[in-house]
Amino acid sequence: MKIGQVKRIRKRTLEILKKAHIAVRPHEAANIEVADFGLNDIKNIGLELIVYENNDRYCAKELVLFPRQICPEHRHPPMDERNIGKQETFRCRWGEVYLYVDGPATQKPKAKIPKKYEEKFTVWHEIVLRPGEQYTIPPSTLHWFQGGDKGAIVSEFSSKSIDESDIFTDTHIQRTLVYEQ
Amino acid sequence: MKIGQVKRIRKRTLEILKKAHIAVRPHEAANIEVADFGLNDIKNIGLELIVYENNDRYCAKELVLFPRQICPEHRHPPMDERNIGKQETFRCRWGEVYLYVDGPATQKPKAKIPKKYEEKFTVWHEIVLRPGEQYTIPPSTLHWFQGGDKGAIVSEFSSKSIDESDIFTDTHIQRTLVYEQ
Repeated sequence: MKIGQVKRIRKRTLEILKKAHIAVRPHEAANIEVADFGLNDIKNIGLELIVYENNDRYCAKELVLFPRQICPEHRHPPMDERNIGKQETFRCRWGEVYLYVDGPATQKPKAKIPKKYEEKFTVWHEIVLRPGEQYTIPPSTLHWFQGGDKGAIVSEFSSKSIDESDIFTDTHIQRTLVYEQ
Repeated sequence: MKIGQVKRIRKRTLEILKKAHIAVRPHEAANIEVADFGLNDIKNIGLELIVYENNDRYCAKELVLFPRQICPEHRHPPMDERNIGKQETFRCRWGEVYLYVDGPATQKPKAKIPKKYEEKFTVWHEIVLRPGEQYTIPPSTLHWFQGGDKGAIVSEFSSKSIDESDIFTDTHIQRTLVYEQ
């Protein structure tokens, strides 16, 4: 992604955070992580993040999804003897998010996937999260999620986050990105 | 504390959360933890908590302080070889909070302590947190905090929480309470 696009997306992210009355400091606003997962289609596949804290023991982030934006299917694998993989709790703060994990497929799911990506989404057990609702995803469990029609803000509480180790169903995905000037 | 008083305090806690646009579900509202630390003086010494998640790896809570309410001085000691004590990150969401940790004493601190408790507060290095500001308290570090003139809401992100092991400077304190009918 070009840095100009990243800045536009950061501005839009801040507008959503403001709507939800979530305060962020200027240095956080200037460093919002904009992830297009290397697919160059951030309208459909993307995620905006503010990492509040990430240390060896715990991690807390605010995740922002634009309307119908999708965080693609992935899992957090075991890392070593002391880390069986990242566990995370999603708490919806604003909007609505459709979360999918392994389990019996939900008939008529709320998520809408562009046709070209359909085969990259293999788990369809739906959990709908509205403000104040939350769900904990066990380590190494495949999952993906989509914002509703007005988008969503999700607080993520978790064990240590090591994004570069995430395993995506779509093997074209690159999680760690460098913004171009 | 009598359950009637607890219910009144829960209602007041919900009013503050509503002001701050923080959504909680009915079962959370009905179970807000009201801690008077056994001192029966919750106007001065007390804390209201919603525990979103607490597992072996991480913990997330929302802390609510009424105007000038104080969470008394304490530390989270080492538990075992794998747990060197609870580490916690406080992120102010609403209002203003005055946090005190070990370190050079701040001249003219913002906190106000009722005279009868003065000797129970021994660390005076001040950190002021306004919405969007945060601070991480290392394990086993003495700390205490007070809400500002309109109170405060603080998101706490931490390693596992084991309240009953907390060590308070005021030895009269009981952290774990049963509400009376």
